[in-house]
Amino acid sequence: MKLITFDEGRVGRLELEEGVVIELDVPSTREYFERGGKVGETGERLRYEDVTLRAPIRPKKFFHTAGNFIDHHNELTAVDWSHPVHKGIVFFQNLDAIIGPDDDIVYPEGLTKELDYELELAIVIGKSGKFFGPDEAEDYIAGFTVFNDITARDIQRKEMESGVFSFSKGIDTFCPIGPWMVTKDEVPDMHNLPMELRVNGEVRQQGNTNKTRITWPHLVAYHSPQVYSAGDLITTGTISGVAAVQPNPFDFYLQPGDVVEAEIKGIGTLRNKVVSWEEAYGEPAPKRVDW
Amino acid sequence: MKLITFDEGRVGRLELEEGVVIELDVPSTREYFERGGKVGETGERLRYEDVTLRAPIRPKKFFHTAGNFIDHHNELTAVDWSHPVHKGIVFFQNLDAIIGPDDDIVYPEGLTKELDYELELAIVIGKSGKFFGPDEAEDYIAGFTVFNDITARDIQRKEMESGVFSFSKGIDTFCPIGPWMVTKDEVPDMHNLPMELRVNGEVRQQGNTNKTRITWPHLVAYHSPQVYSAGDLITTGTISGVAAVQPNPFDFYLQPGDVVEAEIKGIGTLRNKVVSWEEAYGEPAPKRVDW
Repeated sequence: MKLITFDEGRVGRLELEEGVVIELDVPSTREYFERGGKVGETGERLRYEDVTLRAPIRPKKFFHTAGNFIDHHNELTAVDWSHPVHKGIVFFQNLDAIIGPDDDIVYPEGLTKELDYELELAIVIGKSGKFFGPDEAEDYIAGFTVFNDITARDIQRKEMESGVFSFSKGIDTFCPIGPWMVTKDEVPDMHNLPMELRVNGEVRQQGNTNKTRITWPHLVAYHSPQVYSAGDLITTGTISGVAAVQPNPFDFYLQPGDVVEAEIKGIGTLRNKVVSWEEAYGEPAPKRVDW
Repeated sequence: MKLITFDEGRVGRLELEEGVVIELDVPSTREYFERGGKVGETGERLRYEDVTLRAPIRPKKFFHTAGNFIDHHNELTAVDWSHPVHKGIVFFQNLDAIIGPDDDIVYPEGLTKELDYELELAIVIGKSGKFFGPDEAEDYIAGFTVFNDITARDIQRKEMESGVFSFSKGIDTFCPIGPWMVTKDEVPDMHNLPMELRVNGEVRQQGNTNKTRITWPHLVAYHSPQVYSAGDLITTGTISGVAAVQPNPFDFYLQPGDVVEAEIKGIGTLRNKVVSWEEAYGEPAPKRVDW
């Protein structure tokens, strides 16, 4: 099933081939999972072309993991990135930076000059739980969505001197997710999903979830001492090809006007445009507050 | 005003001297701030001794900042902590690790042997907003509560090799807050609040918010590109005296049976007991999932 949030927050099941949205009788996709998917239909059917997709879920928590893909690990090592990319990296994504499919990424020119992309598969956690092992973890995985981990590399580099990074990935509009959630039953093999990120149609990242150093159930179990709520997201790390590791990164960093398509085969394509602050708000970008 | 959450999530105003709780007609303290404090009373009055205090708020986001206090910065430098403590450190706290006053901190013996404390003032954000300057920031500060930043130092040390720390501070029950929120009008000077943390009555940390390197409105403005929702918490960093920096840290790390009192004069005292996993759940502590 493709589970969507649309218009002013309504929940639906998308029948893509028929071009139809069947509205579900639940106030949010988060509550859909809290109720264990035991949710009826409202009886309303809409044409897909008539609805506006929103971020598919507003989770309680958005675990951000990194270091799971061999090739991204290797490319960072090659350019002498400031820290080794160990296994087990985790931090929390900014819930208020979430945007949906076709929402604009607003370039905060007063804060960064190095806006980068990172295609990631996000796992949707279907039920609450904590402190469980890999054998039980598959039961917690309800589905998947696409995440584009927009990152201000200049801010990240500075942050990492202190042993954290968060601000660089948590600025307003930096967390596109979508276009929908695909439930696990529709994904034949979660460890064999081709991934590709394009900027203005040009391929920048290519990979496959079969290149991971850990299985997804194992990853979910590993972080379970931090407690899951139903509907939580857990990202799985990006693949090679980010702008920051190119010999000429400034030819690759995102610019206003760029259109980014983050695609995972069998899940979907998340498309977002980058717009200047001026274009978004009709005024010059604010400078960063210094101290 | 002392704003509390009590019993099964009811909201009230505590009149401490009279020992009375006046129930407020709002489903949560978060919604209290979303409504700009325009909230009536239910008419119900309870005796303070008859209610059970809960975590005063369940915020949408819990910003964790660090590096703001000179003395904690200096003590970490003295013991050659793995990273410099720069200004501007921020990450997100685990919302599902929040516990309230008198709730137990459950020691996960399978994961850590170095359980530490960190007394912090937490600012309560009263209204939503983003990208604002220090001049406007004071309007966003609605009040304060006490936060004890429980940290597994052995996990943190390992995490910081990769340039993050989050898991070490985000394990279940590691985020005690409370005992209530004190609104700003009752705090004569937010930059002159004596702070003291005691373990079994023995003073471990002592400081004052006047030792900070940044004013709180400035700190709130600094992080505003990450967007605030009404009721968000933003912590302000700890003071000197944590166990990890002692010459003999293992004499200071928390143990099951310890009672931690985190006190900020004019705000309140947050008291939590550390219990073993066995005591909490009647079974041996689970081992960490490895990979």
